[in-house]
Amino acid sequence: MSELRQNLITHDWVIIATERAKRPHDFQHGLRHARPKERRHAECPFCPGNEALCTEDIWRLEHDGQWLVRVVPNKFPALTRLGERKRHEDGIFRHMHAVGYHEVIIETPLHNANLALMSEEHLGQILRVYRGRYNQIRRDERVESIIIFKNHGPDAGSSLQHPHSQLAATPVMPYQIRSRLNDAGRFFDDHGECIFCRMLHDETERAERIVTKSAHFTAFIPYAALSPFHTWIFPHRHSSAFDMIADEEIHDLAHILKDVLARMYYGLRDPDYNFVIRSIPTHYGKAEFFHWYLTIIPRVSMAAGFELGSGMFINPSPPEQSAAFLRDVALPG
Amino acid sequence: MSELRQNLITHDWVIIATERAKRPHDFQHGLRHARPKERRHAECPFCPGNEALCTEDIWRLEHDGQWLVRVVPNKFPALTRLGERKRHEDGIFRHMHAVGYHEVIIETPLHNANLALMSEEHLGQILRVYRGRYNQIRRDERVESIIIFKNHGPDAGSSLQHPHSQLAATPVMPYQIRSRLNDAGRFFDDHGECIFCRMLHDETERAERIVTKSAHFTAFIPYAALSPFHTWIFPHRHSSAFDMIADEEIHDLAHILKDVLARMYYGLRDPDYNFVIRSIPTHYGKAEFFHWYLTIIPRVSMAAGFELGSGMFINPSPPEQSAAFLRDVALPG
Repeated sequence: MSELRQNLITHDWVIIATERAKRPHDFQHGLRHARPKERRHAECPFCPGNEALCTEDIWRLEHDGQWLVRVVPNKFPALTRLGERKRHEDGIFRHMHAVGYHEVIIETPLHNANLALMSEEHLGQILRVYRGRYNQIRRDERVESIIIFKNHGPDAGSSLQHPHSQLAATPVMPYQIRSRLNDAGRFFDDHGECIFCRMLHDETERAERIVTKSAHFTAFIPYAALSPFHTWIFPHRHSSAFDMIADEEIHDLAHILKDVLARMYYGLRDPDYNFVIRSIPTHYGKAEFFHWYLTIIPRVSMAAGFELGSGMFINPSPPEQSAAFLRDVALPG
Repeated sequence: MSELRQNLITHDWVIIATERAKRPHDFQHGLRHARPKERRHAECPFCPGNEALCTEDIWRLEHDGQWLVRVVPNKFPALTRLGERKRHEDGIFRHMHAVGYHEVIIETPLHNANLALMSEEHLGQILRVYRGRYNQIRRDERVESIIIFKNHGPDAGSSLQHPHSQLAATPVMPYQIRSRLNDAGRFFDDHGECIFCRMLHDETERAERIVTKSAHFTAFIPYAALSPFHTWIFPHRHSSAFDMIADEEIHDLAHILKDVLARMYYGLRDPDYNFVIRSIPTHYGKAEFFHWYLTIIPRVSMAAGFELGSGMFINPSPPEQSAAFLRDVALPG
């Protein structure tokens, strides 16, 4: 019989569907989407030589006169930098200008690169750029929440092939994030501990859903994962905001992120995926009850009417099985 | 500049993205997915003659010895009828058997039929079957929430082409539904009125987002719709549970549902879509603060990292424009 499981951080129930269970190999992407082969593409706005197709750089990391990572404004921004954070309320109709930030982090000059195959050193550079932009933008009083995310492949919502990630900073608190903050705060009040630290402790003790560990991080598939191979990477040190990450932790995060992405790349054959860095909203200080983390969601299943109508998910892959599969992937070298 | 809007029922913020705005025609599906041409398919488990491929019928509506609508158990159920509703808690790990109902409503014997083109009379029969099953299942004390939904086409998560919808009854309260109940209850406490009735009133007064109206229902694209052409059909009469629907309302709902689906079919060229009937959880009685409704979500855009990471959505189509487009679709006849 299928099993219902509840995630105590998100409070979401998920159905671990044994009747429609698939084996991990069934999710292999089979390289369904063509990835670029050429190192440079004449019309790609993110390729070297085409810098003029973007507006001016916000940030540029260079080495020997060649850029390695660039940050540019999103050409079709959902949120724009200029303007006031001002609500307009007219009965049930509430709106405001979409002020904020919407930036693109161009991860590499190489059009055909893949994050899963880059050097740890380069991944570390990208993470340092994330931290830098996060730290600058959080100082803008209009901003409430900063989301750093990556869309890899068309099934993950990416329209451009050149490796890139994005940062969005919103002038409102997303309802979902407020709910989770409230719930995490309540847990702290009731139990005197951070629910994320507790989950990390308990998942580490059980061990069966751990994908891999490093000095400062643990990657695991949560007990009530909403979809197959949905992986959380938690920092061991309690810390509420991503930009509190220390240099040696950045280095180590690059290591474990590459490790997990490579396991997905080889094990699931370069699946489309999203990743997101979840961090405490910017107007909070050092909160004892909230813990930043990184979540990776391979897009190997989809939300249909049941999910849209209930907010619950059906996961056809038991987390223990998915975790064992990723643990056992043979990595080259 | 783009605009942020908040939906007062769901409390979700959405970015109405003018910088990346698309015109309604840009969402036309272009018949990308082949729909079946044959009236009967030899291997389809839902076609007449293949009834033995399903387990026994739960419900069968017949005319002249031929069935018109059938309800069968889902062959790969996410929730199963037998078993106890019993929680197991082990620290942060909480689970239970997935008891409940997971049924398939086979909408017609015709393999190549399309709900948008069926007769109102036949649509009424299907809705009557929904009401019947809803009403029976709500009596099962183990059930907390009943979701009736349809997945039309592969982008909406459908794997079988023969027209069908589904019913899922869960033994837990989905977190999202609990949140909305709490918020709607709070609105009632504060304002003495149903937030849904209020929205219906205000949207009717503004008129610019109305798609179509009938005697007992109004179809509109909400002010803060999460995605293009996302349409809500609200009953005018305050009523918290779907199975309280009266016969003449069923007849009228068939009329307006066909009208809206036909506008999408002709205007957007048979898009993949989901629809969901949202109704109050079963252990509530007649609640003054909650209102059942039907929501239709054409799958013409997708959730990417930003949406997964924040719960907020980016809608590239202003609701006023989408509504005007659907209003103006020329329907045959």
